[in-house]
Amino acid sequence: MKRVLFSLLLAGSVVAQGQIRNDELVELTHVNQANVRTEISIPDFDGYETLKCDFHIHTVFSDGNVWPTMRVAEAWQEGLDAIAITDHIEYRPHKKVVLGDLNESFKIAKKYGDGIGFIVIQGTEITRSKPLGHLNALFINDANVMDVEDPLAAIDKALEQGAFIQWNHPGWPDDKSTLYPVHEELLKAGKIHAVEVLNYMEYYPVAFDWCNQYGIAPMANTDIHDLISGDYGWGGGKMRPMTLVFATERSEKGIKEALFARRTAALFDGKLVGKSEYLMKLIQASLRIRRINDKTIEVTNISDIPYEMTNGGKLYLFPCRKTVRIGIPKEGALVFENCFVGMKQKLNIPFEWWSSIL
Amino acid sequence: MKRVLFSLLLAGSVVAQGQIRNDELVELTHVNQANVRTEISIPDFDGYETLKCDFHIHTVFSDGNVWPTMRVAEAWQEGLDAIAITDHIEYRPHKKVVLGDLNESFKIAKKYGDGIGFIVIQGTEITRSKPLGHLNALFINDANVMDVEDPLAAIDKALEQGAFIQWNHPGWPDDKSTLYPVHEELLKAGKIHAVEVLNYMEYYPVAFDWCNQYGIAPMANTDIHDLISGDYGWGGGKMRPMTLVFATERSEKGIKEALFARRTAALFDGKLVGKSEYLMKLIQASLRIRRINDKTIEVTNISDIPYEMTNGGKLYLFPCRKTVRIGIPKEGALVFENCFVGMKQKLNIPFEWWSSIL
Amino acid sequence: MKRVLFSLLLAGSVVAQGQIRNDELVELTHVNQANVRTEISIPDFDGYETLKCDFHIHTVFSDGNVWPTMRVAEAWQEGLDAIAITDHIEYRPHKKVVLGDLNESFKIAKKYGDGIGFIVIQGTEITRSKPLGHLNALFINDANVMDVEDPLAAIDKALEQGAFIQWNHPGWPDDKSTLYPVHEELLKAGKIHAVEVLNYMEYYPVAFDWCNQYGIAPMANTDIHDLISGDYGWGGGKMRPMTLVFATERSEKGIKEALFARRTAALFDGKLVGKSEYLMKLIQASLRIRRINDKTIEVTNISDIPYEMTNGGKLYLFPCRKTVRIGIPKEGALVFENCFVGMKQKLNIPFEWWSSIL
Amino acid sequence: MKRVLFSLLLAGSVVAQGQIRNDELVELTHVNQANVRTEISIPDFDGYETLKCDFHIHTVFSDGNVWPTMRVAEAWQEGLDAIAITDHIEYRPHKKVVLGDLNESFKIAKKYGDGIGFIVIQGTEITRSKPLGHLNALFINDANVMDVEDPLAAIDKALEQGAFIQWNHPGWPDDKSTLYPVHEELLKAGKIHAVEVLNYMEYYPVAFDWCNQYGIAPMANTDIHDLISGDYGWGGGKMRPMTLVFATERSEKGIKEALFARRTAALFDGKLVGKSEYLMKLIQASLRIRRINDKTIEVTNISDIPYEMTNGGKLYLFPCRKTVRIGIPKEGALVFENCFVGMKQKLNIPFEWWSSIL
Repeated sequence: MKRVLFSLLLAGSVVAQGQIRNDELVELTHVNQANVRTEISIPDFDGYETLKCDFHIHTVFSDGNVWPTMRVAEAWQEGLDAIAITDHIEYRPHKKVVLGDLNESFKIAKKYGDGIGFIVIQGTEITRSKPLGHLNALFINDANVMDVEDPLAAIDKALEQGAFIQWNHPGWPDDKSTLYPVHEELLKAGKIHAVEVLNYMEYYPVAFDWCNQYGIAPMANTDIHDLISGDYGWGGGKMRPMTLVFATERSEKGIKEALFARRTAALFDGKLVGKSEYLMKLIQASLRIRRINDKTIEVTNISDIPYEMTNGGKLYLFPCRKTVRIGIPKEGALVFENCFVGMKQKLNIPFEWWSSIL
Repeated sequence: MKRVLFSLLLAGSVVAQGQIRNDELVELTHVNQANVRTEISIPDFDGYETLKCDFHIHTVFSDGNVWPTMRVAEAWQEGLDAIAITDHIEYRPHKKVVLGDLNESFKIAKKYGDGIGFIVIQGTEITRSKPLGHLNALFINDANVMDVEDPLAAIDKALEQGAFIQWNHPGWPDDKSTLYPVHEELLKAGKIHAVEVLNYMEYYPVAFDWCNQYGIAPMANTDIHDLISGDYGWGGGKMRPMTLVFATERSEKGIKEALFARRTAALFDGKLVGKSEYLMKLIQASLRIRRINDKTIEVTNISDIPYEMTNGGKLYLFPCRKTVRIGIPKEGALVFENCFVGMKQKLNIPFEWWSSIL
Repeated sequence: MKRVLFSLLLAGSVVAQGQIRNDELVELTHVNQANVRTEISIPDFDGYETLKCDFHIHTVFSDGNVWPTMRVAEAWQEGLDAIAITDHIEYRPHKKVVLGDLNESFKIAKKYGDGIGFIVIQGTEITRSKPLGHLNALFINDANVMDVEDPLAAIDKALEQGAFIQWNHPGWPDDKSTLYPVHEELLKAGKIHAVEVLNYMEYYPVAFDWCNQYGIAPMANTDIHDLISGDYGWGGGKMRPMTLVFATERSEKGIKEALFARRTAALFDGKLVGKSEYLMKLIQASLRIRRINDKTIEVTNISDIPYEMTNGGKLYLFPCRKTVRIGIPKEGALVFENCFVGMKQKLNIPFEWWSSIL
Repeated sequence: MKRVLFSLLLAGSVVAQGQIRNDELVELTHVNQANVRTEISIPDFDGYETLKCDFHIHTVFSDGNVWPTMRVAEAWQEGLDAIAITDHIEYRPHKKVVLGDLNESFKIAKKYGDGIGFIVIQGTEITRSKPLGHLNALFINDANVMDVEDPLAAIDKALEQGAFIQWNHPGWPDDKSTLYPVHEELLKAGKIHAVEVLNYMEYYPVAFDWCNQYGIAPMANTDIHDLISGDYGWGGGKMRPMTLVFATERSEKGIKEALFARRTAALFDGKLVGKSEYLMKLIQASLRIRRINDKTIEVTNISDIPYEMTNGGKLYLFPCRKTVRIGIPKEGALVFENCFVGMKQKLNIPFEWWSSIL
């Protein structure tokens, strides 16, 4: 008889291998994602490890809405390699309810991060009105001493601790990205090391040029207050904005060295912002080329950054983790339309690179 | 002025209608999901509104890791209709850091919920060892008075406030689902009104029978401590477990009335647990049938609950929001394999229902 | 003992309910999608049924690569309501291998369509060089008589059969969309009833204006030769371009009447092209509004067409089957940026509509 | 000139770099998937290349419904490395309409495959009733000579051409998988080299043992007649069943050598069937392990085959392209629940392998 019906509930117990499954308890092992991490594929080059980082994060200890441990868990699950906890110094709306000094949120996050092998960097956010605005101090060891009236003194306190200073969201809150005299002076004194070209849900094209002009590192961070999943979505290929750090080793020390050496790129919404040499190397490491015949090649984008290229009047799309079959590009530059090396400059890869591998 | 409408292509500036887009600031409007809610489609029947609820949620005010507002935001975004904030009375590991009495988390969540039109119910969790275990008291107005030594007294205090009492996760922490004498007495006295047949990532088949035996409501709740996205995933069709409440109106009052009337079903991992009459009506409202010819029908499942049915030795799958073309089922019962009306009983829909609509 | 290992392979047979599952054969019922159809949600209005159609399809009987039955299966699975088989008259590269007159492909498709209750319309494509170009004749009953030297005579033959004449892809193959004198004459004589504003992977903005100017129906069709899945993708929310037909009944007769009455809209890549009155009604039927408070509303897009709206300098996105929480729009028109009523005109919905429902 | 590069914003015309975008024509470059291939990640080992193949495919030239070129296009897009065209000898329902000898479908497919660098193997299906049933002959050069009355003679004709003989779907059509005397003889004579353990939507557990018992290769093929997308779905992580071939080089010659050497595994519905040594090496190449501390490791599954493992009574899931954080497995075997080395035997990996890398 072809179809036999078994009710399959043997007295007391049906047990799937290694999973409790009986009348009193059934585990839904396959549902639980708590210990699952998505791997984001962005290649290394030149002996550097490409680390995926978020250097601007808030918790309940300032004006965020999440316990510090959850920031580490979120980032680990999403596939990042490091975060900085950067609660505000001056703006702590929960402070009557959530007790703790200015180092507490980091300590809690750090302990959790150490337990799962995830890099957590101590930071804080100097939070003032324009013209100065907001700046993050990263790699500090004591935020308490930075709670002073004069923000320039706070910056100096941070620098005494060896901090890396990041100028946050220049375009907030008035939608104007202005480099004020105070910034000129800090830059001239070497007291600003980076600027957020992307923060949360907005970016500042003019800041792409400031990176070149002042020799500071481009950064892209979430400045997340609520949940990553709620604001950016989660899974299915979605990725928060992130700062790519090209480090000599996967450690806090490696990240610090790379930041001071300005070896970063900003990655957000399928766009890259950074120095031509870094973006070119990323692309060269991401696109594998296979010649099919005299006219046709296959280009495989092994990474999770999609690329758009124009050449000879044609538009080529290289989606993540896909291969495209295209005609061999013609003489002339290849412009990567999603890759910015300046406010109005896109990355050009010389045709020689292509021809050398065809 | 922050937002200015430009319809032209200005020199140096390209502005998409209604979105700032210039050299100083570009808004990534399409990225921001903060105000976006997924709609979960589960039909109404018999004049009841099918409300999607989670009656077991923790925040930083006990042993959860999220500010109360975020629980409301998560639930609204995921497509639920109501939640209860049910922080532990006795177990508050953050209490030296997070100040507030036992009503504080609810107050914060409620204020946020009122602001966005989302129903937030006050609750608390009596948290003891087995045999009693954990119970949630829902629709209370003051949890402080329940912080007493005798948990049975705590239950009575809750009942004085008109509370609905839900026996939580009978199978935790020892993987044994035992109905102890204390539960027998409380049930006999009408002091337990519901039991979680599913909690977090496990379910308790024997509890399906307790619902029938004792006339209590089946519930499915997350008992979430961390982030829904981290534990269950987010988007792409994933849904947290939830308690379906068949209410006369979409309000706290309507939910309360429905719970006391035992008009609930548990929904988790594609399974339903509940009274035969409710599950049958849900299915009848979910499956639309169209006759193609004498032998063939199309069955459209308009809901977000997938169904599996057997009839005449064949297995039929009705995925969410899809139509399947099948042969007309034969005489004999139609067994809904994912729908439980008892520990070992699946929902049977009499063939007469099908034949009446073919 | 908590975890018990059962090997669960009983002698000869383990059978899941209604599915063969034994040592000799296991059915993978859940894998088989052959009889599964995705439902595309686009609402009806004004007593019309919104039918989703593709009026330009090729098979192995001209220069397509798929047996006619597969075109019906593809379209049924993707959620369409009707297709026309429109193989070329003059261009049949497989004709030495695939025998059959000019009606054969339709006959094969029609038989299959009748078997599954799917509407298949007979058509053919008059295939000439510019200036005339290509035109589809729909609702014919005999394509053989149209195989004549003079294409204008072929058009007349089609009209004698009551055909509806659709001018195909005006911009192909030279990327110039030119309305030639021959088209002017045919339009003046009422011998062209529609134009494809979208064909395959390109659209022709100037043709939006021709619809208004000449009173012809806007159409969007795939002109598919290979596989829909290969060219457009499949599943996960992807949809082929389609012509929406607002018919009095879901039948070939209803579609024919609606086409001659010009009750169509073109839907492709998230854009709609059509008469203001139809697009407005589609939107009004798609967006459900719920007032939260004096400042806030929730807008639910129940359809599978995403909308983008600007008002008062702000951009609003209404993704498919989601709810968005927004501030109440201000006085002034609401411009639907993805909805075209002319080449340069987007749909404006008067503020009165909104205010009447708030 | 068809494609002109405009970098400026011309009056009336907005042109994206390298994409035509003006009033007469707008290209939807991003929509077109025709030249896009998904890459399936299954690692190599021991110097072999893991090739992903389908050795059982039909076209309009027998009882399939797709032109031969589309089979190559489908397979290339889905990420396979080779297919065999195996139309029936004896069953050609379209033969009055589709002309061509028994080699025609292969020739058409091969020409297309050569053009895009995809391996297409000539095959045919000897199609008889049970007891013999159906068998594919692969690597033939002339199917015409195999159209003889005696199927055993047909097999011999194939063998004369150096063919590899695959016994198809032993469980079809009567749901009984019977190894008949005729099969015993053919196996003894070395005239059957492989058996399909999976065909289309069903698999035959007893055939897992036949592979071991008779030293024949396990195969998994679609036997596709209609569209892969329609039957199996497409994109979003879905994959057709496939035969993995561990070849010394990526060529027809390499595949042939590997098949005769029995270096295959069957992959379908997340299950693998094959020799213990091959499956173990696949897994060892797929799972990367990183020690977090004395108790915890991270396991990254770099492949597109999900694994399920039990050890010490616990169930571990290793989803595709994800990392899971787990406790270090305990002493005792690690059973891979989705990997079959025999009908009732799952793959066991000795604990020594794990301990050596921890």
